[in-house]
This record gives sequence, C-alpha cells and structure tokens, in this order.
Amino acid sequence: MKKSFASDNYSGVHQKILEKIIEVNNGHVSAYGADEITQEAIECFKDIFGDVEVFFVFNGTGANVLALEGMKARASAVITPENAHIVQDETGAPSKITGMQLLTVPSTDGKLDLEAAKKWLTFKNNFHKPKAEIISISQTTEYGTVYTLDEIKAISNFAKENNMLLHMDGARISNAAVALGCSFKEMTGDLGVDVLSFGGTKNGLMFGEALIFFNKELAKEFSWIRKQNLQLYSKMRFMSAQFVPYIKNNIWFECAKNANDIAQYLKLELEKIEIPVTKEVLANAVFAILPKEIISELQKSFYFYIWNENIHEVRLVTSFDSTKEDVDNFIKKIKELLGK
Amino acid sequence: MKKSFASDNYSGVHQKILEKIIEVNNGHVSAYGADEITQEAIECFKDIFGDVEVFFVFNGTGANVLALEGMKARASAVITPENAHIVQDETGAPSKITGMQLLTVPSTDGKLDLEAAKKWLTFKNNFHKPKAEIISISQTTEYGTVYTLDEIKAISNFAKENNMLLHMDGARISNAAVALGCSFKEMTGDLGVDVLSFGGTKNGLMFGEALIFFNKELAKEFSWIRKQNLQLYSKMRFMSAQFVPYIKNNIWFECAKNANDIAQYLKLELEKIEIPVTKEVLANAVFAILPKEIISELQKSFYFYIWNENIHEVRLVTSFDSTKEDVDNFIKKIKELLGK
Amino acid sequence: MKKSFASDNYSGVHQKILEKIIEVNNGHVSAYGADEITQEAIECFKDIFGDVEVFFVFNGTGANVLALEGMKARASAVITPENAHIVQDETGAPSKITGMQLLTVPSTDGKLDLEAAKKWLTFKNNFHKPKAEIISISQTTEYGTVYTLDEIKAISNFAKENNMLLHMDGARISNAAVALGCSFKEMTGDLGVDVLSFGGTKNGLMFGEALIFFNKELAKEFSWIRKQNLQLYSKMRFMSAQFVPYIKNNIWFECAKNANDIAQYLKLELEKIEIPVTKEVLANAVFAILPKEIISELQKSFYFYIWNENIHEVRLVTSFDSTKEDVDNFIKKIKELLGK
Amino acid sequence: MKKSFASDNYSGVHQKILEKIIEVNNGHVSAYGADEITQEAIECFKDIFGDVEVFFVFNGTGANVLALEGMKARASAVITPENAHIVQDETGAPSKITGMQLLTVPSTDGKLDLEAAKKWLTFKNNFHKPKAEIISISQTTEYGTVYTLDEIKAISNFAKENNMLLHMDGARISNAAVALGCSFKEMTGDLGVDVLSFGGTKNGLMFGEALIFFNKELAKEFSWIRKQNLQLYSKMRFMSAQFVPYIKNNIWFECAKNANDIAQYLKLELEKIEIPVTKEVLANAVFAILPKEIISELQKSFYFYIWNENIHEVRLVTSFDSTKEDVDNFIKKIKELLGK
Repeated sequence: MKKSFASDNYSGVHQKILEKIIEVNNGHVSAYGADEITQEAIECFKDIFGDVEVFFVFNGTGANVLALEGMKARASAVITPENAHIVQDETGAPSKITGMQLLTVPSTDGKLDLEAAKKWLTFKNNFHKPKAEIISISQTTEYGTVYTLDEIKAISNFAKENNMLLHMDGARISNAAVALGCSFKEMTGDLGVDVLSFGGTKNGLMFGEALIFFNKELAKEFSWIRKQNLQLYSKMRFMSAQFVPYIKNNIWFECAKNANDIAQYLKLELEKIEIPVTKEVLANAVFAILPKEIISELQKSFYFYIWNENIHEVRLVTSFDSTKEDVDNFIKKIKELLGK
Repeated sequence: MKKSFASDNYSGVHQKILEKIIEVNNGHVSAYGADEITQEAIECFKDIFGDVEVFFVFNGTGANVLALEGMKARASAVITPENAHIVQDETGAPSKITGMQLLTVPSTDGKLDLEAAKKWLTFKNNFHKPKAEIISISQTTEYGTVYTLDEIKAISNFAKENNMLLHMDGARISNAAVALGCSFKEMTGDLGVDVLSFGGTKNGLMFGEALIFFNKELAKEFSWIRKQNLQLYSKMRFMSAQFVPYIKNNIWFECAKNANDIAQYLKLELEKIEIPVTKEVLANAVFAILPKEIISELQKSFYFYIWNENIHEVRLVTSFDSTKEDVDNFIKKIKELLGK
Repeated sequence: MKKSFASDNYSGVHQKILEKIIEVNNGHVSAYGADEITQEAIECFKDIFGDVEVFFVFNGTGANVLALEGMKARASAVITPENAHIVQDETGAPSKITGMQLLTVPSTDGKLDLEAAKKWLTFKNNFHKPKAEIISISQTTEYGTVYTLDEIKAISNFAKENNMLLHMDGARISNAAVALGCSFKEMTGDLGVDVLSFGGTKNGLMFGEALIFFNKELAKEFSWIRKQNLQLYSKMRFMSAQFVPYIKNNIWFECAKNANDIAQYLKLELEKIEIPVTKEVLANAVFAILPKEIISELQKSFYFYIWNENIHEVRLVTSFDSTKEDVDNFIKKIKELLGK
Repeated sequence: MKKSFASDNYSGVHQKILEKIIEVNNGHVSAYGADEITQEAIECFKDIFGDVEVFFVFNGTGANVLALEGMKARASAVITPENAHIVQDETGAPSKITGMQLLTVPSTDGKLDLEAAKKWLTFKNNFHKPKAEIISISQTTEYGTVYTLDEIKAISNFAKENNMLLHMDGARISNAAVALGCSFKEMTGDLGVDVLSFGGTKNGLMFGEALIFFNKELAKEFSWIRKQNLQLYSKMRFMSAQFVPYIKNNIWFECAKNANDIAQYLKLELEKIEIPVTKEVLANAVFAILPKEIISELQKSFYFYIWNENIHEVRLVTSFDSTKEDVDNFIKKIKELLGK
C-alpha cells in the first residue's frame, strides 16, 4: 500500500475512536443531538473551553462556512489572507452559501498582515464599500505556519477596535496546540476569538468538526442555521461520540504530537540530502523544493501534492499514523531517483 | 432503554454495515472519493441503475437540496406538495441554499395533485411568474404513502410535456421498493426521474445518501456543486463503503422488509384495540389517533411524534431493527393506560 | 390610443410630478441621496409618519424584497397569503434575493387568515421548521380588497405575540388610505407595522417607492443593504423630488381619489349591464366575469388582464388619469360586442 | 452652486434627454417594456451593435451584477482586477446577489494582468478550486485608463481559450469610445465581449443602463432573471426613451467628448501649476496629488474625492456639462490656497 504525505485526510481512523463508534451502536437514541452521548461530548468541550456553545458539523468546509454564516450581520464581508483555505480551496462555498464577499489581503506566510488589512476599513462611513465586519484566520495556516499567541492577540485587538468578529479555522488546531505547547483555550477564547472551527477529521477522527462559540450571543439561533445550511446529522451520536475519547483520553494530543514530530523528522532528513525546505516547520506540513525530474516518478510511490508548479515546491503532510519508517522510505526513494 | 417509534433515524447501524466500516479502516487512501472503495460503491449503483452518475453526500437534507441545486436552471422554481419534507422540515434550506421559491400544491395524502399543480404553469409566457421548472416528489411520502408506478409515470409525463425536470426524494426509497415489490430502477429511471436522492441513513447505515443522476447532463459540474454546497466528505471511503454491502448483500431489502412488516403488524395490533389508523400503511409509517389523555404518559416509555395536535394524530415509524416484541410492549402499555 | 384598465403602471406621470423633475435638473448636487432635495423629501415623510427612517428605492419588487431583506434575522422565513404579490408576481425574487422560504396561507380575498397562519408557528421549539419570523401583508391586497384598521391591528398583535415583524406592501397604499378615509400613519405605524413599502409609481410618479422604517433599529445598516441589493440610485434627486409635491401638495390623494372613484363608477356601470363583479370594490381594482366570447375582441380596444381563465374573470384597474369617458367607452364596447 | 469634480453622477440630465422624457409622457402604454418606445430604443442599439439582445436596467451596479448573474453557469466564479468597481464599490453586491466568489488579480492601472490571472485556472481538474469561468473588465477602468483594442482582444482570446465568458463594465464606455476614436461595436462585440454593461446615467441620462448580450444564448431566460433580481422597471418607456436621442442624435458623443476634453484641459492646467498627475488621462478622470494642507479647504468650494489618503491622491471627474470655466475657477482656487 502506498503511504501518503498528501494530506492528513488520506489517513484512516484512530483505533480508540473506532472503538468508541462501535460502543455507541447500541439501540435507539434521540436523533439530531438530543441524546446523552452528544451531551457528554459537549461537556468535554466545556471542560476545556469554559462557558461556550458547541455544535457538531460534518466537515471542514461546513464548519468554516457555517461559522461565517453564524457571524454574519447585515450586509457583512470577510477579511482574510489571500491564501486562506476559504479563499483557495472551498470552491467558492463561503460566498455561495453566505453571500459575503471575501476581502483578501496579500500574504506570503499564510498569516494575516494587519497593516495591509486596513485598506478594507473604509466601509465605516461609506455604504458603497464591502462591510468588512468579520476576520477569518487559520491556525495552523495553509502553509503550516503557526500564529504566536501575541500575533493572535494583536489580530483580536484589531478586530475589537473595529467592531469586527474573529473566526479561527482550526482544521489543524491540535497540531498548533502541540507546536505552541499551550492549551486550546489559551490560543482561542482567552485571546478573543469569537467562533472556532475545531477540527477532528484531519487528526484521527472518522468524520466531524465542532463549532465552538465563545461569543454565545451568536449561538442563539445556530440550531436553525446549522440545519438550514445542510450540516445537521441525524444519527448524531456517531459523530459526537468520537470527541469523547478524543478529548478525555488526549487522543488529540497523541495524534498531533506524532504528526508534528514526524514532520520535524522529515524536514531534517530532507535537509540532510539538500532538499530545500521553504517554510518554517512547526506543525505537520513540510514545504520543499524537489528536483523537477523526480517528482512524477516519486508520486508513483508516495501520494503528495505539488503546491507551486513554477518552482517545483511540494507540500508534504504528516498524519497521526505517519512513522519514521515512512519518512525513511520516502528519503530512500528520493535518493534512489537522484542516483545518490 | 426506551425503544422508539419516533423515527428511523433513532436507530443505530446494521451490524454488517458497521463491519464494513471497520474493514476499510486500513491505511492511507486518496481522499474525496478518488479511492477504490468509492469506485466499487459507484459500480454497485451502476449495476442496479444502469448508466448513471453517482455522488455520495452526508445527509438527507443535503441530498435533496443538492439535487435541486443540480437541477436548477436560470431563475427556476420548484413545484412540490405542501406537505413535502423540503417544505415542512428542512428549516427553509432549499430556498436558502438554492435561492428557489417553493411553489406548493395542496395535498392530503402527501402526493402531488397534478391538476392543482397546473396553476403554476403560467410562467411560460409571463416573466413575472416564478419559473416552475422542477418538480419534486417523495417516495415514500411524508405520510408513508407510496406512489404507484403509474402515478410516477403520469407526473414524469407532465414534467416532460412542460419541459420540467423531476426530482424524487427517496429518503425511504427502500421501503417503497419493498412495498411495491419492484426494483429501484423500475420506480425511478425507467419512469423518467432525472435525479434521485437515494436514502441510506434511515435504513441501517451510519451516515450517507447517494445522489443518482439519470440525467447525466446535469451531473457534469456536480463535483464542484457538491463541494460548494458543503457536502463533500474527505475520508469518503467510510461513507461509500457502507453502500457496498447495502446493495450487494441486499441489506437494504432485509432492513426495509423488516420495517415494513413490523409497521403492518403495528397497524393490525392498533386496530385490534380500536385505535384508528388514519393513512394507508404500505411502508414503515403508521399514523394513528390516540386518546389525548394517554399521549404524554405513553411518550415516557416510547419515543414518537405528535403529527396533528388538533386531532391527536401521532406518527409511528418502524426501523430496520424494530421487533414484534416492541409492538407488543407498545400495545400493552396503551391498554394499561386505557385501563383495558 | 388605446386606453387601459390593465394596470396603474400603464399610465404616465402626473403633470405636477413631471414639473418637479424638470425643476430639479439644475447643476451639480451630491449623488446617492446626500443632497438637499432628498433631505426635503425625507422630511415630508417624517411630517406624515413621525420618527421614521426613509429610504428611496427604484421599484415595487425592489421595495418589497428589500423590506424583507431588512427585516430578515438569522434563518428567518416569511408568512404571507398564497395570493400575495411576493408569491405570485415577483418571479421568485423574495426567495432568490433574501434566501427566505415563503410560507403561504390559503386566502380567497387576498387577506391573511390568522387562524390558518398558526400552522407555521411550530418552529419555536423545533429547529427543523422554517423560522417564521416575518409576516407580509398587502394594503390594498392583490384583489383590490382593503384591510380594516381592526384587521391590521389583529395581525400586528399576532405578530407581536409571536415575536414576529410585520411588513406591509403598500404599492397601492394611497388607494387604501382614500378608501378607508384615514391617514397613512393611522393605517401603518400606529398599528404596529414595522416596515412599509410606500408605493408611488402606480399612483402618478415616474418611478420610485419609499421604504418607511417605523422600526428604526432595522434601518441602521440599511444604507449598505440597499446598495448591496441593487436599489441605490445615483442621481437620487430625480426620484426623491417627486415625493415632495406628491405629499406636500396632496397629489397622492388627488390621484388615488380619482382612481377609486372611477373604479366605483366602473363597477356600477358593469352591474347595470349585468356583468357580475366578483370582489368587493373599495379601491381601484374591479374583478368581473365577462362573457367568454367577447374577451379577446374587447382586448383589441382596451388593455386588461384575464385573472382566472376558468371562470373568465378579468381584472380592471383604474389609474390617476382614468375618466368616466373611458368607462363609458368601455361599457359601450361591451354592449356592442354583446349585441345589446 | 458648488461645481463638482466628484463624479459624473453629480451632474444632471442633458436637455435633449429631458425633452424626450417629457415627450413620451403621453397616455397609457404597455408596461414592463412591451411598448413601442422601448422597441424603438432596442432598434437603436441593434443599429450600432448588430444582432444583439438588449435589456434596460436601473443602475450601474444593477447592470454589472445582472450581467454576471446572466453569465453564471453552475458553480462559477469571476476573475477581475483587484481595483474593479465590482470589487471595491458595490458593497459586496456581486457575491451577495450571484453567490459567486470574486477572484482578484493585482493591478496598478485598473487593467487585468493576464499573466497574474493564470493562477486562477487550476480549477479545471480540481473541484476544490473556485470555478473561474467569467472575466470582468471595465472600459474605462476605475483609474480612467482605457484598454486598447489589442488589449481587449488578448483578454477575449484568453477567455475563449479557457472556456470563459467575458463581461465588460461600460459605465463610462462612451468616454472610452471617444478616447479611442472607435465605434462601440469595434471595442466590444467585434472583439468577443459576451455581455456589456452599457452606461448611460454617468453621461447625461436621468437613469438607465442597457445590458447588451452579444452572446444571445445567455439572453434567453434573461427576462425572468431581470425581474428576479429587482431590475425590471414598470413604466419602462421613461427609461428606454432616453436612449433614442442618446444614440440617434449622438448625444452620447457630444457628452463624452466634452467630458474628455475638459479632463485634458484640467490635466494640462494642473501640470502648469506643478500639481503631479498620476495616471494617464485618456477619458474623463484625472488623478492628481494635491498638497495635503489645501485639500479640505478646496473641498469647501468643489466636490471631489480623495482616492489614496496616504499620498494625498485625489480623483477629479469631469462631466458632460463641465466647462473650461469650472477648471479655471478650480485652478484659481488652488493657486489662491497655495498663496501663488
């Protein structure tokens, strides 16, 4: 079987998560989240985040778009880095579903440049301008970089000063928490994030993301919003149950720690054979420039994506189940193809 | 544990389906449906439906709304019975997501009254009128009734004559197929249905519905449409795999047959104790009028929904795992509450 | 030239209105409403309505749809009679632009049946149901009928009791005010209407409708909403100026009074020759059943619409410039065609 | 009265246009465009554009957004320069109304950089990417620059090669035609433009823009689309009639020629007093850097907008009725404020 550095959603389900799913397949329970298992999962989130509202949704794009829909006020628009997932890789879903314009800001490292973002503030006294009332950032970013707590705080302050709301796309938030050595809460609610897309699928779950509303006012009608935007699961227990061991038994940490560690190992091994690594590696993504002539041959043995064709930059993503042996095999294959 | 006649999504997952899910949790595979398991599941559908396009989506509302989005032409609207699920129980999702107006037609049995539907045809030479170019019907209907093949054919002919497309909400299509004793194809593609929401979750799957495009032209850009409308699953194999045994091993039939049979048994048992059954019982729903004074007490032991408060009509739905014993206990409780 | 009973928008512009337009074509003024003429027009509305917010928009559908957009909360839907203009004659614009589902209520006289509307209240504790938070009624109705003040009050009370907002489509509100012999304010803001589409085009203006927000909270971001929904006019003075003589010089009254009076005369003349008039005539529409064989011939001399083909019911609408002579000619032609 | 260099929509209506409006205020005619005046106006457009479909709409944002709505296929997105009017000055209307994501391309002169636009082509084999099937350019651009015929042809070829459609925002197309000394058709349909927003309001009309469909296939359902998107005018003759003298009597040319000429004069006069002009002046906009200290004082006498606060760049727009005397007074005031 080909192993993969393509994406953390090429991997399967952590064994403990699968066991939990099997465990809850037991008779009839109320549908749509009105069951005890879902209640337990919500309590797990309250244990780590405090006084929040929690809603489970199917997938990452669903989580991001519903967060934005939930934050949308009257005629709002969204400020976000030009390379954000919501801009580049969601097929236009945010504008399609919410009707909001995406106001992009140039970015080289995946992070939001606040200075450059200021150009979108002109709407305040000008009703011809997109009403830029939401900021969306990703932790980790699309480039695998990680905002420091200070950087998030600065963005949050900027948002507050300008009466904006702050969304965080946390599809890989566990990898960020491991990278920063902090708690989820210290990185989000404590800094003023209003709504968090808390990812699960990319880190060992079968399916399911959680929307965490630190700003509870926004959550009041969210049950209707979730259903109206196609993200309400009937047999909810099979999704929510996964988050119980994920949080209680620290499976999130175990999975993200492994992915991050293997990414570090991959980075070092690539550098040993003089493959340039182009972005700082803090979480589970390694961007590297491979010799053009070996890429397609290498892809026959290992899944991975070309990120920037012009410079032969590839993205290598590690997973909860990646191993040093996978890396060793990958490096060995590169060396073989390079005739080293 | 309380047993349920509330809905077929209160039940869990058929054992064979769960085993398949466990089986495919095996290493890395391509995400988003570009894997062999998903290919196999698609082939299963082609075996029963012929030359169709197949897309897996998360849930029933997602399936219906994406079918409508996929059928939408320029400025279209949708004709449907006033009691359709898309009108009554999807929180406005069809209009929210597709922007289409729902043009409702009075109905007492859940079926579309073609004569009454004609009032919506005036748009043809009048651009002030909603452009009624899609018809959506449900098989089984919200009242558990089942269209005959002739009835579907008549609606399909009406659609063709008026240049309309025909959608079928088949959340409970397996129950309809068992009720009519026909194949899925005889009830859908053979009669001119353009797009079918093929339900799985309500009949023993963990999650997942399939959209079947008999009209392949409509499917051409549907990969983008699915992602844009939040219904693309990354770890697709865990959804698609469920359909392999479901179809190949006739689990759909086994499950629906049981649900229908138990519904018949429930109907007969209710009638024995002179509880009026209000709709024809052909599939897995039984509508009955219970004495008002026992309803809330009965709900403490058995989940079920009140359908029409004014006349104390309740809806009782049987599942793939419902048993005669469940019915016996239910009847016993009613008798006890009635002091019989 | 053929005279018309087709619609009040077949007529042209009242001479005094045209003179005002010519008058304001005088040099440069600020665009988009930041000019003194527009300010004066707004003051005219405040004189008659009190402490309201006023926004001018292009057309009737624009006014209605933007009112609904302005009233929309999170995931809302709209309750309205099945024969409302927003349901029947706006090509699905309300659902397309606002994303809201229209929840229709059976109606024979164009008015909202509150008893029947109650079926849409189930959403309160059920997030699967369309969130019915807006009521939209028309004054006059599509059938030319006119709500009494008590009827409006009852609907407004119903709305308040259920935390709903109330919109009034006043495309022909001047005709209603004349019919009831009351002020605009007594019929709207005094009774709890939240937003009013105040019509002008059908009653002698060249173009332009006003949105009156009695509920000022809803108006706060409406400048952005108006522009975002395509209804902001750059050379605003040419629209707003029309409302100055319209209100100050009571042109609204003069125009509507004439239209209503001629409608009464038409009704009486029709009845004299035993043409059945089918709806109560209070404003400027007369519904009548014509002998089938004369309809197409009569339409060669007079514009009018067939309302209900099955029973040969036609709609005859009078305008600000309709005359008794027009009616006499119409009656004469009918008699001629009937061989009387 | 303050004269204006703020925008060409601060000006009023050309006398000949006003006379035409007065002329058509004559009795009853069919509403919604089914009248002879509108037919005549459409023929005027066919005379200059050939075999096209023509639809009149209210305003510029309406024209652009409806063009995009009319070009939208399934799940499409729009490529456009980052400084386009549809991105910067329509309050998010394009995304709100069409649901399409705007895919922006860096631009310094208002024109589309085709090389940079190529980054949005990755969608072709990747359904996660926004489906970039429409290109929108402006002639003249937001910076008053004018595409050469060769530049438009290159963009059109790029569009065709990539199966995209091409929209041109021609809010100031008359100024461009005068600047290039070519016909409207040579600049649009002859080069492969699919849909043109043909501006009128900014060049001497009271209100009204025309949508020209060179691609007639796109026009087939556009009558419904126009109504559904709030841009159908009932008393159409008062809008369409304006285009008859505008085109037949070359009022478009007279107006645009004057505006362009005065802009040239303004540019030269500014340069004489050493005020730097920052963009090439070909049409009716002059961008200049004024000494910071005089700007607010100067705005007390003349309307104009600050374009870039950081460098004190202002935009000065001339109109059909601008005069050399206006420029002389403006220059005189600047000199006075500068103490020259």
